[in-house]
Amino acid sequence: MISDRKLEHLLLCKNCDVEYRKKTGLGDVELIHKALPEVNMKEIDLSIDLLGKKLDSPFIISAITGGHPSATVINRTLARTAKILNIGMGVGSQRAAIKHPELTSTYTVVREEAPDAFLIGNIGCQQIELAQKSIEMIDADALAVHLNPLQEAIQPEGDVDARGHIESITEMTSTLETPIIAKETGAGIKAEDAITLEKAGVSAIDVAGSGGTSWAAVETYRAQDRTMGDAFWDWGIPTAASTVEVCQSVKIPVISSGGIRSGLDAAKAIALGADAVGIALPLLKDAYSGHEEVVNRINKFNEELRVAMFLVGASNIAELKKSDLII
Amino acid sequence: MISDRKLEHLLLCKNCDVEYRKKTGLGDVELIHKALPEVNMKEIDLSIDLLGKKLDSPFIISAITGGHPSATVINRTLARTAKILNIGMGVGSQRAAIKHPELTSTYTVVREEAPDAFLIGNIGCQQIELAQKSIEMIDADALAVHLNPLQEAIQPEGDVDARGHIESITEMTSTLETPIIAKETGAGIKAEDAITLEKAGVSAIDVAGSGGTSWAAVETYRAQDRTMGDAFWDWGIPTAASTVEVCQSVKIPVISSGGIRSGLDAAKAIALGADAVGIALPLLKDAYSGHEEVVNRINKFNEELRVAMFLVGASNIAELKKSDLII
Amino acid sequence: MISDRKLEHLLLCKNCDVEYRKKTGLGDVELIHKALPEVNMKEIDLSIDLLGKKLDSPFIISAITGGHPSATVINRTLARTAKILNIGMGVGSQRAAIKHPELTSTYTVVREEAPDAFLIGNIGCQQIELAQKSIEMIDADALAVHLNPLQEAIQPEGDVDARGHIESITEMTSTLETPIIAKETGAGIKAEDAITLEKAGVSAIDVAGSGGTSWAAVETYRAQDRTMGDAFWDWGIPTAASTVEVCQSVKIPVISSGGIRSGLDAAKAIALGADAVGIALPLLKDAYSGHEEVVNRINKFNEELRVAMFLVGASNIAELKKSDLII
Amino acid sequence: MISDRKLEHLLLCKNCDVEYRKKTGLGDVELIHKALPEVNMKEIDLSIDLLGKKLDSPFIISAITGGHPSATVINRTLARTAKILNIGMGVGSQRAAIKHPELTSTYTVVREEAPDAFLIGNIGCQQIELAQKSIEMIDADALAVHLNPLQEAIQPEGDVDARGHIESITEMTSTLETPIIAKETGAGIKAEDAITLEKAGVSAIDVAGSGGTSWAAVETYRAQDRTMGDAFWDWGIPTAASTVEVCQSVKIPVISSGGIRSGLDAAKAIALGADAVGIALPLLKDAYSGHEEVVNRINKFNEELRVAMFLVGASNIAELKKSDLII
Ligand SMILES: Cc1cc2nc3c(=O)[nH]c(=O)nc-3n(C[C@H](O)[C@H](O)[C@H](O)COP(=O)(O)O)c2cc1C
Ligand SMILES: Cc1cc2nc3c(=O)[nH]c(=O)nc-3n(C[C@H](O)[C@H](O)[C@H](O)COP(=O)(O)O)c2cc1C
Ligand SMILES: Cc1cc2nc3c(=O)[nH]c(=O)nc-3n(C[C@H](O)[C@H](O)[C@H](O)COP(=O)(O)O)c2cc1C
Ligand SMILES: Cc1cc2nc3c(=O)[nH]c(=O)nc-3n(C[C@H](O)[C@H](O)[C@H](O)COP(=O)(O)O)c2cc1C
Repeated sequence: MISDRKLEHLLLCKNCDVEYRKKTGLGDVELIHKALPEVNMKEIDLSIDLLGKKLDSPFIISAITGGHPSATVINRTLARTAKILNIGMGVGSQRAAIKHPELTSTYTVVREEAPDAFLIGNIGCQQIELAQKSIEMIDADALAVHLNPLQEAIQPEGDVDARGHIESITEMTSTLETPIIAKETGAGIKAEDAITLEKAGVSAIDVAGSGGTSWAAVETYRAQDRTMGDAFWDWGIPTAASTVEVCQSVKIPVISSGGIRSGLDAAKAIALGADAVGIALPLLKDAYSGHEEVVNRINKFNEELRVAMFLVGASNIAELKKSDLII
Repeated sequence: MISDRKLEHLLLCKNCDVEYRKKTGLGDVELIHKALPEVNMKEIDLSIDLLGKKLDSPFIISAITGGHPSATVINRTLARTAKILNIGMGVGSQRAAIKHPELTSTYTVVREEAPDAFLIGNIGCQQIELAQKSIEMIDADALAVHLNPLQEAIQPEGDVDARGHIESITEMTSTLETPIIAKETGAGIKAEDAITLEKAGVSAIDVAGSGGTSWAAVETYRAQDRTMGDAFWDWGIPTAASTVEVCQSVKIPVISSGGIRSGLDAAKAIALGADAVGIALPLLKDAYSGHEEVVNRINKFNEELRVAMFLVGASNIAELKKSDLII
Repeated sequence: MISDRKLEHLLLCKNCDVEYRKKTGLGDVELIHKALPEVNMKEIDLSIDLLGKKLDSPFIISAITGGHPSATVINRTLARTAKILNIGMGVGSQRAAIKHPELTSTYTVVREEAPDAFLIGNIGCQQIELAQKSIEMIDADALAVHLNPLQEAIQPEGDVDARGHIESITEMTSTLETPIIAKETGAGIKAEDAITLEKAGVSAIDVAGSGGTSWAAVETYRAQDRTMGDAFWDWGIPTAASTVEVCQSVKIPVISSGGIRSGLDAAKAIALGADAVGIALPLLKDAYSGHEEVVNRINKFNEELRVAMFLVGASNIAELKKSDLII
Repeated sequence: MISDRKLEHLLLCKNCDVEYRKKTGLGDVELIHKALPEVNMKEIDLSIDLLGKKLDSPFIISAITGGHPSATVINRTLARTAKILNIGMGVGSQRAAIKHPELTSTYTVVREEAPDAFLIGNIGCQQIELAQKSIEMIDADALAVHLNPLQEAIQPEGDVDARGHIESITEMTSTLETPIIAKETGAGIKAEDAITLEKAGVSAIDVAGSGGTSWAAVETYRAQDRTMGDAFWDWGIPTAASTVEVCQSVKIPVISSGGIRSGLDAAKAIALGADAVGIALPLLKDAYSGHEEVVNRINKFNEELRVAMFLVGASNIAELKKSDLII
């Protein structure tokens, strides 16, 4: 049952080492210190406009969960965080709720908790028929269509027929009014795919590159035979590389995610061209301790981001995007 | 006696660390993830056509043994694997059997076991007079002429007169009807040699580069004085480099081998230009446990190769050969 | 109180690991051995002319302290060293003394101890109104205006309004007769900043790059929450890179500092283009044992510098500046 | 006394770690395997012509000792090796013997032991007046003029006036009939120096680069204060780099030495352009056990060199010099 598998995923992510062994590449990116920043750090503006919504800082709580009983409390905790900090938040794939309506409340809790927050729905790219319902379920501001061929290929029950995805996405973007975000889940997006997606009409791309949570790793723990997951543990395009490639190829907003683990990582991703950054794994772990932990982490990331911006002399996110760096 | 030495080689390969300390270079090759593969993984076609024969997947069991009593069971096991999976298989050097006819059955067992398999005979490049007999012995579909100057130079009883090899090979290819494969044994082939071999009329080249079994390593264990083997343990052209060089220099089919240890390695070698990949050491070790182990490993490699092909959006081996990569 | 914080800084620098984890980059710079130096090592001239003053060797005791009772003995020790060796010396920020006149003697001790030494005053870049008083206080030969946005951003009580700094510096240089040195404190200066500073009229630049004392590290120990200091521990432009950038961008004298730990480091920094080199942390540690230790270390550095000059065939600092190197 | 210091050097070299921490660079040089060498290894010719003398292989026993009582036995052992293998050999600096005639026999033993060997005398570059006597003392075939500014600079009693060396060498080459070899002692020679030396009329250059015996290391053990030796332990141009630079700059024969530790190292040095290779430290250690050890090591090196030549298809040293390599 999907629901069981989802719980298993949560527990593995919480308790085991599920991160890429190879790095995001952000560690090799250096922002350049400005001894004369000519900026007042206290007045630095972290806010962004994303798909028509003003958010207080560029951090987005990436899609994590929904569709099994214990997801309710996690989603409520994350939504409370989104409300308190006025940042964006995604829910996990909503397919389960549509198949099992009794699970709907594990998703709708986010809108109840955060009536005004920027919330992002989530479906697979072949589940075109679920799109409208998913949006309505949480009154979503945007719908993430996740692309996860790696996970599908590795997990025994995976759907490995990837034909027609581009067509489905094109149909969704032309029939729905809500903006569609094309989103990987940890293996990254290359320039060519980004161009295809922009042409297919998506409103934003979340690269979700390699260096953070590895779905091959997660599936390794679930598999009887670990060799497959092991071989592909490190498969994918590192977040820094994917961010650069995608930002240079398309004009739509780009969310950089996958292994973002500090405000300094976020600053680097934005300097590489991203408009916002997503985080999943660390927030999931925090969420088990309550929303104060999640709020606390994002506040720290906000502060680190602000310091980095001060030290490169950027007074807002648009200026940070234009700042120099060394790779 | 050759026969004793062959047994010694088998046992050393089975029990000792005989692999290069330096790597194949395939670890530095990255296939590029495609978030939108537009392929049905279940319909991916792993089959290849090699020298006129259709094989179910591009894995070839590289030349390993023959010529001493205990080789019979290993060769039978490997041949059974080749039959079950419809893949290619080579036997070890057949010189021993021609000098000692009582050892013939250690080779002929492969044809008995696998009447329809693609079987490759094996002789040294100076043993032109044995070529026809070797082919007939196992009704070979192709004859590998091995080039192994490193091993000859290091082993005390080695034949170190390498003059006339090109001429011998030219004579073989012009007098025999069976296709000739020029094959190294672990030190790789450089562009210049590949061009010479193509001109000499060979039908395919097996690069057998560095990074897997090291013949200098094997001979180190046999030698009284280990310094020579130690100094040359890492001699040779890494498999990835040799594969690229040879594929760019010749038009005939290229087999990449030497240190291929996963289906992902195989996918990379093919993306570098190879038409098929060979494996020796891991299959030898498996063979001691029976053909189920060997079949099992190659099945895993097939699956990994299939996943890699899915994730780069290649629906067959020809498409994989054309896919992008980063070195 | 400033005074307490200053003591805390001293003690942390003396006792804890406060150095960058990343390196200065000088280790990757190689001077080129000359087998035929054609120089008499005993006659090598280490002296430099800096801002009109002749100094016996290019080492400068960087700004360290003042403004709290225990600073007196350290400053006396360092000043005695400067007198004995006829080298330059800076005092720490003089702001404390101007706010608390009873602390003035912790600074004036240097001029009493070393009436003829080349002494450098020190203020922050926004404290323009303190400039003249600071100079008079120690009868300074030059005034260092320190740029330390990293430290200000990390420490809780930091002044993070960096607006107007360039204007302040311009005003100082146009109204004061004493030469102004723009000086970072460990995060380095980039080309663009150096050009701005030259235009603002400063007489010299002290790059104080990354690789030695890290102010983020120091503040990490003082902070309740260590994550911020930890994230920025390695922030900054490595000393070698900053030295090259600044030397190639401006015509005024350049002091290279930040992680200079041997006479060989000094030789490399000079060959990269610097006119003098500054050292803080090791001399502070020595100073706790008395001036003999400080004199001893600088004498060793002088000797190492002399040997390096001999081995590249440079008979004076000007020739060393022109010598070849490999990066 | 020189004699005591020489003994101290011998004992330190025999018992302590006196080698560079940085490498010769030969490990990064790769000869390219030739699967079709078309050479008979048994007929490979290792002989060279050096300064008019035919030697059986390109190994030269570098200058080591003389000038103190215990040197006699070492020099006899090394000379016996040179005689047995018909290779070249150098003696240590002969200055001691000229100042203390009673030490002459510690040098002359080499000519007594090896009446026909290619023997190389040794003096410092300023000791022009000793040149003719030194040659006569051992009836030298060539005279090495050693350049060792690093050692002179580090050792307390060193002669650090390096002026006039080029002139002295020019005078020697124009007045003496015996060929002069300019020889470093472990810090390497750069292109510019090599060109100067060729112009000064020397007949060959021994680069003696970094990566083997470090004279700063040796002096570190002798010094009361180890910081100086420690700082310069790794000073110098790595042997591979120095060999390439010098070979590309001059037309006279080049001896590559400094850290040559196998026949494969020698093969690489020759492929980089050298005409012969020198070895000191390992042979000194062997010499304490008798000439069989020394002969044995050089025989192994000869064999390794032969194997490397076979595997690149070189049938003599001139062909090896022209073979391809990857750096
Ligand atoms: C437990 C868990 C469940 C996830 N479920 C989804 C999902 O349903 N849909 C989706 O688009 N991404 C999902 N993701 C992927 C994340 O949104 C994110 O792209 C990825 O984990 C990389 O970010 P990270 O390194 O910060 O974890 C999930 C991640 C985790 C850890
Ligand atoms: C025990 C053993 C025996 C071998 N005998 C032969 C042989 O007779 N002829 C030959 O062409 N290659 C021989 N090889 C070399 C292999 O065919 C192959 O080229 C090489 O081992 C590199 O592949 P690997 O790293 O997968 O082992 C032998 C390899 C092994 C391990
Ligand atoms: C305890 C301490 C106090 C310092 N105080 C000052 C200061 O007041 N003003 C200043 O310009 N730099 C100050 N510095 C920075 C040094 O002058 C120097 O630029 C920096 O420490 C890098 O050099 P180092 O790696 O040799 O320590 C201080 C350094 C230390 C260690
Ligand atoms: C104990 C010892 C004494 C040496 N004495 C001399 C010498 O007197 N003259 C000289 O030119 N080189 C001398 N050398 C340097 C060697 O000839 C050689 O250039 C250097 O050691 C590098 O070679 P290696 O790494 O093989 O030892 C000496 C080396 C050693 C180990």
